Amino acid sequence: MKARVFITLKSGVLDPQGEAVRHSLGTLGFQGIEAVRQGKVIELTLSETDPARAEAEVRAMCEKLLANTVIENYAVELA
Amino acid sequence: MKARVFITLKSGVLDPQGEAVRHSLGTLGFQGIEAVRQGKVIELTLSETDPARAEAEVRAMCEKLLANTVIENYAVELA
Repeated sequence: MKARVFITLKSGVLDPQGEAVRHSLGTLGFQGIEAVRQGKVIELTLSETDPARAEAEVRAMCEKLLANTVIENYAVELA
Repeated sequence: MKARVFITLKSGVLDPQGEAVRHSLGTLGFQGIEAVRQGKVIELTLSETDPARAEAEVRAMCEKLLANTVIENYAVELA
């Protein structure tokens, strides 16, 4: 079973990467861009077939390794 | 209006970052992980309110700056 983890910076945490993208888009002539935030997406292929257990396992992975929960939020989506 | 862009490596393109995550998860005791791919998610806040025009604009941003279409796929989601 496949799982996708979305990791984004918490609001209030500075995002210099997103700010750089916003500036570059402005330089290229794109207008009306109010904000840009950049995050990570991690796609996992698991041998686990039970959705509940897979989600619990992926959440444990986020807490232990994938996300820095001090400054980042994460969301898990199973497919 | 908000848009999310998902940028992932095309299949067949080596993903050393994903491979490192897979290895680290194994070291931490997580089992049954068959594959890990890491990508980017970019959240844009646009002043454009028309969904069709917003999507066209975001796709142009992907082609010009956000994604390297030689090795990366992108998907646009409006919210």
